[in-house]
Amino acid sequence: LEEIQNVLRMYKQRYNDLSGDSRFKYVLIFKNFGESSGASIEHGHSQLIALPMIPKYVQEKMEGAGYYFNHHKRSVFADILEQEKQEKQRIVFENEKFICFCPFVQRFPFEMWIFPKNMDSKFQQIEGAELTQLAEMLKDSLSRLKNCLANPSYNFYLQLDPINIEYEKSFLWHIEIVPKLTRASELDWDTGFYVVHTPPEQAARYLREAK
Amino acid sequence: LEEIQNVLRMYKQRYNDLSGDSRFKYVLIFKNFGESSGASIEHGHSQLIALPMIPKYVQEKMEGAGYYFNHHKRSVFADILEQEKQEKQRIVFENEKFICFCPFVQRFPFEMWIFPKNMDSKFQQIEGAELTQLAEMLKDSLSRLKNCLANPSYNFYLQLDPINIEYEKSFLWHIEIVPKLTRASELDWDTGFYVVHTPPEQAARYLREAK
Repeated sequence: LEEIQNVLRMYKQRYNDLSGDSRFKYVLIFKNFGESSGASIEHGHSQLIALPMIPKYVQEKMEGAGYYFNHHKRSVFADILEQEKQEKQRIVFENEKFICFCPFVQRFPFEMWIFPKNMDSKFQQIEGAELTQLAEMLKDSLSRLKNCLANPSYNFYLQLDPINIEYEKSFLWHIEIVPKLTRASELDWDTGFYVVHTPPEQAARYLREAK
Repeated sequence: LEEIQNVLRMYKQRYNDLSGDSRFKYVLIFKNFGESSGASIEHGHSQLIALPMIPKYVQEKMEGAGYYFNHHKRSVFADILEQEKQEKQRIVFENEKFICFCPFVQRFPFEMWIFPKNMDSKFQQIEGAELTQLAEMLKDSLSRLKNCLANPSYNFYLQLDPINIEYEKSFLWHIEIVPKLTRASELDWDTGFYVVHTPPEQAARYLREAK
């Protein structure tokens, strides 16, 4: 747990340090684990890439959040959180400050999202109990994944606020965990349609029972 | 060659037949070959999926073509063709009616695009010499790929006109051939940045020399 906290603290430090460089608009932090994840070196490692633009995937997500906010006057992240809490069946694990769930609309089987419960949470200021609980949450989620699915390859990536640029204020940072169980077909990437055989409710149940 | 012609003729027939169903907006035709391509059955096969919307990748390409046309009053496809003919070094093979080249901006190493040379070409009307030469072109490209790179997995997909819907008239149908040599990292898909280690001029040279 302490090592995971150290890693998260390092993420934050590097993010904040790179934010001081006005050439950068986004800091992409992710971890690839296992052969199928695209990991290029064998030992455990994270990757951090500072970019002069917002990655397409994040940009689209922010535009969607902005569109939702303009129509509903509510944050889509707050609404997702509320819905998951009400319906319960897709929740994998939660503690006081974070929640992990299999999203209602998933791209990959056993995909998990970790949301802060406080909509004002800022990853760049994370410390104390919030940091501890995020480490606990990450450890728990990845342990469940490992036990539930025989140590699969996975990627997780932090979806953080852009830097040095105006962006949708309704955006909330979060973490996506994507196990690599099936090979994404060309169809998925080209169309934006994803074929997922395991419903999120079922995946969440397996993950809850895994530990 | 005759078998490839028959397959292409079948593509055309199914495309035209499905175009009669107003629920569909796009007919996606592609072939996955080999384990890494995401092929789900072992014997050679193509896939055809009729969709109620234009796939995201095609939509973005058409928007880009429309943007280019509005700014330059020229088709980006015509300009690409002209540039490839002038610079020559990325051309893999050409016949009277088609050209195969490694695109200047590629997403994957040894990616190849097949363009009709006639900007008025319509896949839905392809027949006679154009059909024969497309078959020849496809056979040649895939044979070169096989010989050059030890029979790699690949995908090819037809980028055809949408159906039953208004679309950019500056769009030109074409075929993309994408060998699966490297594992696309999460970075590629999320950012829209692709890391390619082999320059297209070098890939084209290897492919030219392969047969």
